Amino acid sequence: MCELLGMSANVPTDICFSFTGLIQRGGRTGPHKDGWGITFYEGKGCRTFKDPAPSFNSPIARLVQEYPIKSRAVISHIRQANRGEVALENTHPFTRELWGRHWSYAHNGQLKGYQRLAVGHFRPVGQTDSERAFCWLLHQLWLKYPRPPRNWPAVFRYIALLADQLRQRGVFNMLLSDGRFVMAYCSTNLYWITRRAPFGKATLLDHDVEIDFQQQTAPDDVVSVIATQPLTGDETWHKITPGEFVLFHNGVQLA
Amino acid sequence: MCELLGMSANVPTDICFSFTGLIQRGGRTGPHKDGWGITFYEGKGCRTFKDPAPSFNSPIARLVQEYPIKSRAVISHIRQANRGEVALENTHPFTRELWGRHWSYAHNGQLKGYQRLAVGHFRPVGQTDSERAFCWLLHQLWLKYPRPPRNWPAVFRYIALLADQLRQRGVFNMLLSDGRFVMAYCSTNLYWITRRAPFGKATLLDHDVEIDFQQQTAPDDVVSVIATQPLTGDETWHKITPGEFVLFHNGVQLA
Repeated sequence: MCELLGMSANVPTDICFSFTGLIQRGGRTGPHKDGWGITFYEGKGCRTFKDPAPSFNSPIARLVQEYPIKSRAVISHIRQANRGEVALENTHPFTRELWGRHWSYAHNGQLKGYQRLAVGHFRPVGQTDSERAFCWLLHQLWLKYPRPPRNWPAVFRYIALLADQLRQRGVFNMLLSDGRFVMAYCSTNLYWITRRAPFGKATLLDHDVEIDFQQQTAPDDVVSVIATQPLTGDETWHKITPGEFVLFHNGVQLA
Repeated sequence: MCELLGMSANVPTDICFSFTGLIQRGGRTGPHKDGWGITFYEGKGCRTFKDPAPSFNSPIARLVQEYPIKSRAVISHIRQANRGEVALENTHPFTRELWGRHWSYAHNGQLKGYQRLAVGHFRPVGQTDSERAFCWLLHQLWLKYPRPPRNWPAVFRYIALLADQLRQRGVFNMLLSDGRFVMAYCSTNLYWITRRAPFGKATLLDHDVEIDFQQQTAPDDVVSVIATQPLTGDETWHKITPGEFVLFHNGVQLA
């Protein structure tokens, strides 16, 4: 299995604190040593740092941890390989263009019969069930909306219906973003928290690091974080009900 | 205008030396301060480091310079903006999937009437003439080869015909790769060099750095480098004739 981490914020925010917690699970406090990746959106653009090597001692992970890239939408993943060898092409997040936007996706779980998923012109590059499921999802979206849609809540409800179908093939926890929206679909485990004023302190479960969010934020900031397991011990995380999804925009939960 | 850098090699090779030369032109010895990017292929996978900030003092560029990522195909670009604001979505290289492979592309030049280029389902995300030309090129390839082609030299000859059409709209120097092939199409300025045994020494034109390739290589290594302007002063670089292209595979010039 793998671990997921996502963020949605109303102002460009760095994810150094949460990422520091996550990457400890990449070979140190957790077994997810088969690569990691993180996608940051800045405007319509995005950039992904990824490595098929364990995150806890990766020089690239260290850069991401120390260089505060500010973003309003982030998706990250650390991998424990099941389907598909340990290789860069099998490392999440996967990003593809649809409707003139970059869509980024990371998956935790395992799917049966994924080779039969029709993908149209969204062909997988690697060998994972995850990437094939992403290609199928994009193909289904493209079939339903050949032109860029306008009713975004309806689009995400449709994506959740597609995710329900994938969940019938196994375990399908997913993070998905186009840079504006961050969607978290829960199949088994996915937690979220929204931080806003008054901000408090928090301590990472996986590493001896404490942060005082009040020092790092302005009063109007709203920042939501999604993770496979809570990253902090002294805050209340909400568990998403299996089969349901949460949609964030500018840090705020929409659905 | 911008500067391009590409590499093709028969063994995974780092590009630290050439990249060190290139990034000096990103705001120090050259005016290309509007972002930079570099795509490394490893197997079928690729990863891109990019930044809309100048390269010469970018922490991410420093990582790329100091952390020897080994690759057999690399494409890099430093930008001096003309069309499209300075933003991540306008930063080269651009990468899109076609035929189950990641295609990466970087462009130097400027095109007129690019808004009229038909792009089918390859929609641009940013505002540059470069990305739109790339989308048009992929759309044309997809129209001609709806299924993955087999005769790759014929595919690249067709790409060169498409590049000829783009060149009629202005200046179109291009680097393109799918991780196996690296293609360099010249509209005005593009130079290349192939290094193989017996390896010698070289000194960067833009920085006080000398390298002894014999220390860094094995006798069978073949490494070709392509750049807008020669990066070293004590080696002989070949200029590509405007309107022609050079194709590399495993470091060796095919066409």
